Amino acid sequence: VPELAVASWTRFADWMATVSDLRGAAALLRWDRETAMPPAGAEGRAHQLATLAALHHRELVRPEVDDLIAELEGAELDAHQAAMVREAERDRERATRLPEELVRALSEACSRSVDVWHEARPRNDFAAFAAVLEPLVELKREEAAALDGDGEPYDALLDEFEPGARAADLEPVFAELRLRLAPLVAAAAERPAFELRRRRWPASGQLALARELASAVGFDGRAGLIAESAHPFTNGNHRGDVRFTTRMDEGEPIGNITAVLHEAGHALYEQGLPEAYERTTLYDAPSLGAHESQSRLWENHVGRSPAFWRWVAPAMRRHFPEAMDGLEPADLHRAATLVRPSPIRVAADEVTYNLHIVLRFEIEVALMRGDLAVRDLPGAWDEGLERLLGLRPPSDADGVMQDIHWADGLIGYFPTYTLGNLYAAQLAEAFEERHGDLEAHVERGEFAPLLDFLRERVHRHGRRLGTPELMRRATGRELGVDAFVAHLTAAYG
Amino acid sequence: VPELAVASWTRFADWMATVSDLRGAAALLRWDRETAMPPAGAEGRAHQLATLAALHHRELVRPEVDDLIAELEGAELDAHQAAMVREAERDRERATRLPEELVRALSEACSRSVDVWHEARPRNDFAAFAAVLEPLVELKREEAAALDGDGEPYDALLDEFEPGARAADLEPVFAELRLRLAPLVAAAAERPAFELRRRRWPASGQLALARELASAVGFDGRAGLIAESAHPFTNGNHRGDVRFTTRMDEGEPIGNITAVLHEAGHALYEQGLPEAYERTTLYDAPSLGAHESQSRLWENHVGRSPAFWRWVAPAMRRHFPEAMDGLEPADLHRAATLVRPSPIRVAADEVTYNLHIVLRFEIEVALMRGDLAVRDLPGAWDEGLERLLGLRPPSDADGVMQDIHWADGLIGYFPTYTLGNLYAAQLAEAFEERHGDLEAHVERGEFAPLLDFLRERVHRHGRRLGTPELMRRATGRELGVDAFVAHLTAAYG
Repeated sequence: VPELAVASWTRFADWMATVSDLRGAAALLRWDRETAMPPAGAEGRAHQLATLAALHHRELVRPEVDDLIAELEGAELDAHQAAMVREAERDRERATRLPEELVRALSEACSRSVDVWHEARPRNDFAAFAAVLEPLVELKREEAAALDGDGEPYDALLDEFEPGARAADLEPVFAELRLRLAPLVAAAAERPAFELRRRRWPASGQLALARELASAVGFDGRAGLIAESAHPFTNGNHRGDVRFTTRMDEGEPIGNITAVLHEAGHALYEQGLPEAYERTTLYDAPSLGAHESQSRLWENHVGRSPAFWRWVAPAMRRHFPEAMDGLEPADLHRAATLVRPSPIRVAADEVTYNLHIVLRFEIEVALMRGDLAVRDLPGAWDEGLERLLGLRPPSDADGVMQDIHWADGLIGYFPTYTLGNLYAAQLAEAFEERHGDLEAHVERGEFAPLLDFLRERVHRHGRRLGTPELMRRATGRELGVDAFVAHLTAAYG
Repeated sequence: VPELAVASWTRFADWMATVSDLRGAAALLRWDRETAMPPAGAEGRAHQLATLAALHHRELVRPEVDDLIAELEGAELDAHQAAMVREAERDRERATRLPEELVRALSEACSRSVDVWHEARPRNDFAAFAAVLEPLVELKREEAAALDGDGEPYDALLDEFEPGARAADLEPVFAELRLRLAPLVAAAAERPAFELRRRRWPASGQLALARELASAVGFDGRAGLIAESAHPFTNGNHRGDVRFTTRMDEGEPIGNITAVLHEAGHALYEQGLPEAYERTTLYDAPSLGAHESQSRLWENHVGRSPAFWRWVAPAMRRHFPEAMDGLEPADLHRAATLVRPSPIRVAADEVTYNLHIVLRFEIEVALMRGDLAVRDLPGAWDEGLERLLGLRPPSDADGVMQDIHWADGLIGYFPTYTLGNLYAAQLAEAFEERHGDLEAHVERGEFAPLLDFLRERVHRHGRRLGTPELMRRATGRELGVDAFVAHLTAAYG
């Protein structure tokens, strides 16, 4: 690299570091909001987040960086540096299309609407929620139009979470999935219902087990922590400080365990991002679909296997000697793999789960096109749930208002959950081609081979490769539903 | 206000809000660092804090604001608005003298040095600490020179925490205090030592008691929370989200109770700042001395009175039925008011406490003048402690390295503790002139009259009045040691 370019690179790296620090600070403010903040803090926090969003945007679009990038494009950069510049350009291009005022307005509208959602949902008050969701959806349409005035409005939003993905490409994937899931859903419905007898699973034991489990799969507790929240989530993007939450219901032990495996999957990805990418545009996953592939792999391919429950049962007996009395690993496995259409996505089984995503995808596309109004959401929801899953939601609270995503402006986000399921199944197949039966490893509590495989093929690349290319190299496959359907057929067929 | 000025005011208010949000975000990052952050997060957090400090500085010095202020100074502003502009000018003037690179370097040096201090202190390794303190002190000297190249270097730093205060004005106050404390220290030393028998005071009971106590004195738990940390502190400046920590030693109950009263005193001040000042330059105390007057009043004038221990004893019996067996309120009071020269400031009694401050004040002035080198700190410390308190520290860890302040770049901060003691005593006198014996209120658990008095005379003014003027109006007195010595004489004479 010539001397002039060295100086430019230093300034470019400083700029990337500033953007990254602002993003990390905002992530911590959101983490705190969900895990600790007192109720009266909501308004002040909303202001702080909007200010950080505006400053983050201002840094992103800083005009001097264009000159820096132009100089660097003439210089000889290594592949990592070139990828940093490429992703910086992508981020800058998106940001430049959005006026700072819109960024701030969106941030404030999301905070307000999340706040109202938290209060309106328990009261089953869709009208109250709609009053804040309507202006937010209007802002999201403005955002989509600003990002790409000509294309499918939904694609402009989807592109933030899954760069390059388009609704038109997802539609046939979802259609094939629906078709091939139908017989599995029908077959599973024939199997008798099974539920663990209600005993008491103390929260203290659940938290201790959560820590043990996280540590067993490779989570580094010196560089992270585990907390509790209503909806489990992972907060990454700070090197050395990766956090996730779990939920604990003293009436049953499965939800905590699957949540820990899911979130640990995300957290292991974050902890596996390369140190050399710290505070650069590459210190991230290339998409939410890629991120979700990790959580789904650990949650479903590891955590819903019979072998996993044989491995974890002794630890459960240690933590819950009374509740585990008379329970066998096979009972736990049956409870963790019951398939039944149900109205709540986060409680859905692995087989019906993606039908919940189809419902949201259809609604979001219509909402963004302007074919569906916010006030008509409950009707569209109930009709779609009936059509896709054959049931009616018991209420708007457990229907159209069940997820926080729309309240938080996250439109175009849900499809990444299904992409995650598909990639997870392809990664699991690729692992088995190389290292043999995954269950045999799980049975022995040997999680390092899987983690090493993921570190090598996925984590260490950060955002250097786009998701399709990353997954093609990692699995040798093009995105498709075969591996996922094969996995479900083996487990539930 | 003419129309042009209305538009300018809106832009000025937006600027104040941005500065305030950045400050609040940084405060939350520091809170999290002390209460939750995993060890490996230190480096990344240091970067984030430095970036927020740099952006905060950049906002503060934004040149357009000069024009706004010039326009507003020609307009008819009310007294509150005029004070906002005045404090904005003060903040901008200080900030303008400091280059952004120095601000960032100071933030990073402080984070690094706090980190090293945390590790070096338990190992009693002053040399390791000195290696990071030396460059930090060098930066502080640079800071002082940039702020005021001609004056006493110490004053430039002191001015950040106690605007307008000067070392030359503090010296005679400290000298008088030393003189008048001497007979009290001597008299108290004659009284026999007393310690509560060591029993177990479970942490869960201590935390429950902390919450009850905070609520009893008026702390609003919907707009705040209580956590635990090694050194208790309060985190304010977010409207609706005021937090403090306490420390809990299962071997004794007094430290938690006095820490809660102290920090609740700070927190009540923050919760009492007026809503109309939210996200402006006035949403703060005018100085740390003013802030500390509140914590000291609640800790010492309320919390070390015999009446307080009579009032709190029934709650203690509820939370600690075993440990309280056979203990009378008078025993608790004796334990909370034992006077003995000791090497640790935070464990010092009310009488000898200010001698610890004198020691730090003398050392800091010499350090800033360049009359004392970092490597000579242990010697200066030991000599000063012997001279002022008649004892030698058992180690550097419990001597020169005991406080986090210097590690965190807080030079010029300690004297505000003594100013707080003096103001607290004057406020207590003024309260009694108006509302009668404070102890009679405390005995009945009636804390609202005191809180209302402080809300009315101190909290509601935010930073509108400078500390001397605020306290003159609140107490009818000029700053002096009489009230404080009278209080100590009554309690310990």
